[in-house]
Amino acid sequence: MSVLFDKVAIVGIGLIGSSLARAARKHKLARHIAIADTSDEARQVAAELKLGESYHADAGEAAKDADLTLVCVPIGAYAAVGQAIAPHLKAGSILSDVGSVKQAVLRDLGPLVPDHVHFIPGHPIAGTEHSGPAAGFAELFEGRWTILTPLPGWDEAAVDKLSRFWSGMGALVETMEPMHHDQVLAITSHLPHLIAYTIVGTATGLEEHTQREVIKFSASGFRDFTRIAASNPIMWRDIFLNNREAVLEMLGRFNEDLTALQRAIRWGEGEKLEDWFTRTRAIRRSIIDAKQA
Amino acid sequence: MSVLFDKVAIVGIGLIGSSLARAARKHKLARHIAIADTSDEARQVAAELKLGESYHADAGEAAKDADLTLVCVPIGAYAAVGQAIAPHLKAGSILSDVGSVKQAVLRDLGPLVPDHVHFIPGHPIAGTEHSGPAAGFAELFEGRWTILTPLPGWDEAAVDKLSRFWSGMGALVETMEPMHHDQVLAITSHLPHLIAYTIVGTATGLEEHTQREVIKFSASGFRDFTRIAASNPIMWRDIFLNNREAVLEMLGRFNEDLTALQRAIRWGEGEKLEDWFTRTRAIRRSIIDAKQA
Repeated sequence: MSVLFDKVAIVGIGLIGSSLARAARKHKLARHIAIADTSDEARQVAAELKLGESYHADAGEAAKDADLTLVCVPIGAYAAVGQAIAPHLKAGSILSDVGSVKQAVLRDLGPLVPDHVHFIPGHPIAGTEHSGPAAGFAELFEGRWTILTPLPGWDEAAVDKLSRFWSGMGALVETMEPMHHDQVLAITSHLPHLIAYTIVGTATGLEEHTQREVIKFSASGFRDFTRIAASNPIMWRDIFLNNREAVLEMLGRFNEDLTALQRAIRWGEGEKLEDWFTRTRAIRRSIIDAKQA
Repeated sequence: MSVLFDKVAIVGIGLIGSSLARAARKHKLARHIAIADTSDEARQVAAELKLGESYHADAGEAAKDADLTLVCVPIGAYAAVGQAIAPHLKAGSILSDVGSVKQAVLRDLGPLVPDHVHFIPGHPIAGTEHSGPAAGFAELFEGRWTILTPLPGWDEAAVDKLSRFWSGMGALVETMEPMHHDQVLAITSHLPHLIAYTIVGTATGLEEHTQREVIKFSASGFRDFTRIAASNPIMWRDIFLNNREAVLEMLGRFNEDLTALQRAIRWGEGEKLEDWFTRTRAIRRSIIDAKQA
C-alpha cells in the first residue's frame, strides 16, 4: 500500500493521538506526522518516544500543509483548536477528530471550517483507562469500530480516503448520523462510565476502615468499575457536558429500571429478579458472537 | 504437605464447587472427594471430568464420614441441604460453605448444625461469569481472598485447619464478623452486580435497531457490564434476597450520588464533575497497589 497522506497533523497527543501516531507509522500511512500539544511535557514525551517528525505548541503550525488534520483533544477544547487551525487548513485537505460526542463537534468546529476543507467527524470505539502520550499503542484500533459522521452532501473520495486510513490501522469503519451516534454511545459508553464513576465515588465516601476493605476485596466486581472510573476526568467531564440530552434520557430509563429492581429486592420478589438476570445473559452471548467481547 | 482431610464432601458442583474439587486434588488436600448435586446432568459432567471419587444425588450420603463438608449451592437451597446433611455430619468434622452472604447462612444453616460439628462459614472472593461444573478451574482461588466468619467461641484448631485448606489452594485467608462481611460485599460485589444487571436490562429494552448497535459498539464500556451481568441468575437472585438490608443501604447512598451527578450534568456544572472523576482515579491506584487489579 502506498503512503495515503503526505502530511498528517495530530492535535493533542494523549492516549488516542499517540496511538494514531504509532499506528499510522507502523502501517506507513503518512510520510510526515506533525504533532501539536499545548502541554510542554506531553510534547517532550512524544519527542522522546519519536512519535512524529515535528512537534508544535501551536496547532495552526502543525496543521499547515497537512493533508489530514486529526483533532484529539477533550471536546471542551475544540473551539479553541478550531480557531487556531482554521486559517491554516489546506484546500482539499481533510479535517477529522476522535471525539466521543458528534453533535457538539459539529456545533463547535463546524462553523469554523473553511468551505474548501472536507470536514468528516469521526470516533474510534477504542480506549483504555490510561491517559497521556506514553499510554498509546499501535494496536489500539485493531478489530474495533471507527464511526464516521460525514455531513450531508459529503465528498465520496474524501470519506473513502479517511476510511482507508482507519482500516489501514486495522479498524472496522462505519458511517452514521451524528444524532444517532450520540444516542447509541450514551447507552454503550457514557452511561456505563457515569455509573462506574458514581459507585466508585460512593465507596470513597464510606468510613475509612470499610474503604480499606473495599480495596482489599475489590475482585468481586468492584474492580471492573474502578478501571472504568480511572479514565481521563477532563475528557469525561466534557463528554457529559456535551451529550447532556442523550445521557439524561438514558439515565432516566436506567433509573426506572433500577427502582423496579430495588422494589423487587425490598419486597422479596425472587421471580422478577431471576427473570431480569436471565434476560441479561443473552446479550452477553450476542456480544461474544459479534466478536466484541 | 501431608493430606489435610481424609474425606471432603462438596455439595453443589457448579463453578465454585468444581474449582474446589480441582484445586483440592491438584494440591493433594483430600484423599477422597465426594461430590453431591441434585442435577443428574451436573453429576454426569463432574464424573466425566473425574472431579471426585464418588458422586451422589443425596447430599447426606456425600457428607457421611466427611472430615470437611463444603456447601456450594445458591443460598436459597441452604435450608434443604442443611436438613439433608445434618443427621450425617461426623463428630469433630468441619462444615463450611462458599456463599456470598454470611448472616443468612448463619440463620438458615446454623440451627441445623449438630453441636459436635465445627461450623465455620466461608466465602472465597473469586469467580467468573461462567457457571456449571465444566467452568471451574484449579487456579481460581490463587492470590484471591477467602473470608471465614467463624462463630463466637470458635475452635482454634478447626479454623486453622480450614485456613490451611484454603491457603493450600493459593488463597489468602482472613476472618471477619458476618455482619461486617455482608456490608463490605454489598458495596464491592452485590451493588456492582445489581447495577450491571440493570443497565444491560435497560439496553435490552431499547428499540431493536439501536439494540443491535449496542452490541456492535459495546467495546466502549458496556461490554464490561455485560460480562458481570452474565453471572448465574439463581445465585444472584438469592444473594439479593438474602442481603437485602445491606444492599438497600448501599443502593440508597449510590442513588444520592447518582442524583447529584445527574443534576451537575443537567446544570452544566463541569467543576463538580471533574472533581468527582479525579477522586475516583485514586482508588484504582490503591487497588493496583494492593495487587487485586
